[in-house]
Amino acid sequence: MTIYDIAREAGVSIATVSRVLNGSGKVGERTRRRVQAVLDSQQYIPSRVAQGLASRQTSSVGVLTVDIRDVHHSSIAYMIEQTMAGAGYSTIVCNLGGTPARLRGYLRALLSHRVNGVFFVGSVFLNEPYAQPIRELLADVPVVVVNGLLDMPNAYGVLVNECEGTRASVERLIAAGRRRIAMVCSSPTRSDENKLRGYEQAMAAHGLETVTAQCARSLAGGEEAAAGLVREHPGLDAIQFAEDITAVGGLRALSAAGLRVPQDVAVVGCNNSTYCDICTPRLSSVDNRLVEQGRAAAERMIAALQKRPAARVVRLSCAFAARETTDAPAHGE
Amino acid sequence: MTIYDIAREAGVSIATVSRVLNGSGKVGERTRRRVQAVLDSQQYIPSRVAQGLASRQTSSVGVLTVDIRDVHHSSIAYMIEQTMAGAGYSTIVCNLGGTPARLRGYLRALLSHRVNGVFFVGSVFLNEPYAQPIRELLADVPVVVVNGLLDMPNAYGVLVNECEGTRASVERLIAAGRRRIAMVCSSPTRSDENKLRGYEQAMAAHGLETVTAQCARSLAGGEEAAAGLVREHPGLDAIQFAEDITAVGGLRALSAAGLRVPQDVAVVGCNNSTYCDICTPRLSSVDNRLVEQGRAAAERMIAALQKRPAARVVRLSCAFAARETTDAPAHGE
Repeated sequence: MTIYDIAREAGVSIATVSRVLNGSGKVGERTRRRVQAVLDSQQYIPSRVAQGLASRQTSSVGVLTVDIRDVHHSSIAYMIEQTMAGAGYSTIVCNLGGTPARLRGYLRALLSHRVNGVFFVGSVFLNEPYAQPIRELLADVPVVVVNGLLDMPNAYGVLVNECEGTRASVERLIAAGRRRIAMVCSSPTRSDENKLRGYEQAMAAHGLETVTAQCARSLAGGEEAAAGLVREHPGLDAIQFAEDITAVGGLRALSAAGLRVPQDVAVVGCNNSTYCDICTPRLSSVDNRLVEQGRAAAERMIAALQKRPAARVVRLSCAFAARETTDAPAHGE
Repeated sequence: MTIYDIAREAGVSIATVSRVLNGSGKVGERTRRRVQAVLDSQQYIPSRVAQGLASRQTSSVGVLTVDIRDVHHSSIAYMIEQTMAGAGYSTIVCNLGGTPARLRGYLRALLSHRVNGVFFVGSVFLNEPYAQPIRELLADVPVVVVNGLLDMPNAYGVLVNECEGTRASVERLIAAGRRRIAMVCSSPTRSDENKLRGYEQAMAAHGLETVTAQCARSLAGGEEAAAGLVREHPGLDAIQFAEDITAVGGLRALSAAGLRVPQDVAVVGCNNSTYCDICTPRLSSVDNRLVEQGRAAAERMIAALQKRPAARVVRLSCAFAARETTDAPAHGE
């Protein structure tokens, strides 16, 4: 059964069937349902292969992540999928697994599937081993980076002001009377650089000395870093972490060292993830608004695909999610 | 530049270039590298669209999950991806988002991309609203369900014996002297039914009365369920949860009720996820071996794609990950 037969059986034009198949253009809900019923009854499978050759267009987008097990990445991928589905696009998620080695292969696979656009989740994609193949291979489709901006005319970015978010969090600690505040970073990414800069700005503004540490992006990494910090810096009264998972590890180390949180040491994470409500005490966190990042990225992509004018960069602000590991600032906010 | 030019430049046959492009068949490592170098230098993008028409074959597989944010699902998807990549397949992950509504659309999209096989992650896909479109649309490609088996000649399954795993966990609680043991389930899936059956078998074997509760699959759901159980069943001395996330919620409720874990109430989760090491006390959990599930599913798919003989069903046993919320059995094990 061809698209012509479907159109005849549903009593609509071929163009209408095509719009229903592609989930694009305006089709009334009743008409859509009638066409879908015929498609379903015939178990019609549109040959995207043939369609692709004819129109060079499929209704799908690709999402590249480094590690889909990371709640940060999977939350954003989930929101992208939900939002793109509303506009009639299927979302194909590809997961690289820690090294840039397979990026080229995945980009080729997505291109040969004729995806309409590609998302990159994570500022790690701005690093040169990733950015180079992206520039080489993706010159012809819209590219949206969630949290960053690539130097390409067809690239769009969702930027979360994590520098400002971290600065505000450290200012909050200072307002609550904390003075010896350390910062723990855990990935060699633009995102972590921005967080570190925010910390340094807040400390400099109050003439306070910085103490920084670097650790593996894991529970054990954060635990080790915090244990080292309190050993080498007695009197430390707060730690700002670049990730919730490392902050949660930090809580373990502080407890093992006999330090009370937040009475002796205040702790703040970043991502405002599920982890914050699972650990004890519950973790205060810089909320870099993962759900909004995913939604904004998808909306930016849809605008690009529909050739609607829209800003090249969408900027989001962080919020602060206060829980039990920080105290209220001494003088309010 | 065509495949003929690539073959000439690399000094190999067209068949060899094709094997390198498809990641299939035997190609020596040195030859593969030489061909890849030419492909890279030419930024060659194989037109899978054209290839698909010619050979009806692409080197990709689809993975369907309900919610990729779930660590359970993302861990399995990650392992599938890693294993399939080793065999030269790209993995396309599609995320349905809670209802079967979009399943048909995604299956059509995967088929029109000519995927070679499809994985379903989660026993929820055995439920009829999911199983029906799968049977209708996927009669021609290998289907692997991770944790379950669909009634189709081309379906393979990885089954984890969660009934036995839960039975052993409850037996362990009984051996440690627990008698008033409740079970909390949280999803209407085959997987939860099996866990419940294991609990019932262990309780029956010792002539103990069962107490069961149902809750939403969330932190708040588990918290509410545990609060209700200890209120209505004073003297309850252990709770087996069907999920780590609900068990972690349960820990909160027990702490709020002034009950000590494990002294007053022992708690066991299921999945052996990161959550277990983040909560306090650390959560003991039935380990249903997510990594092995993903790997076994991918290996089963590869065998089917290569038409190698292999069992229709791969069976895995659960392990028990003892942490701080249970005590050692009174008489050893």
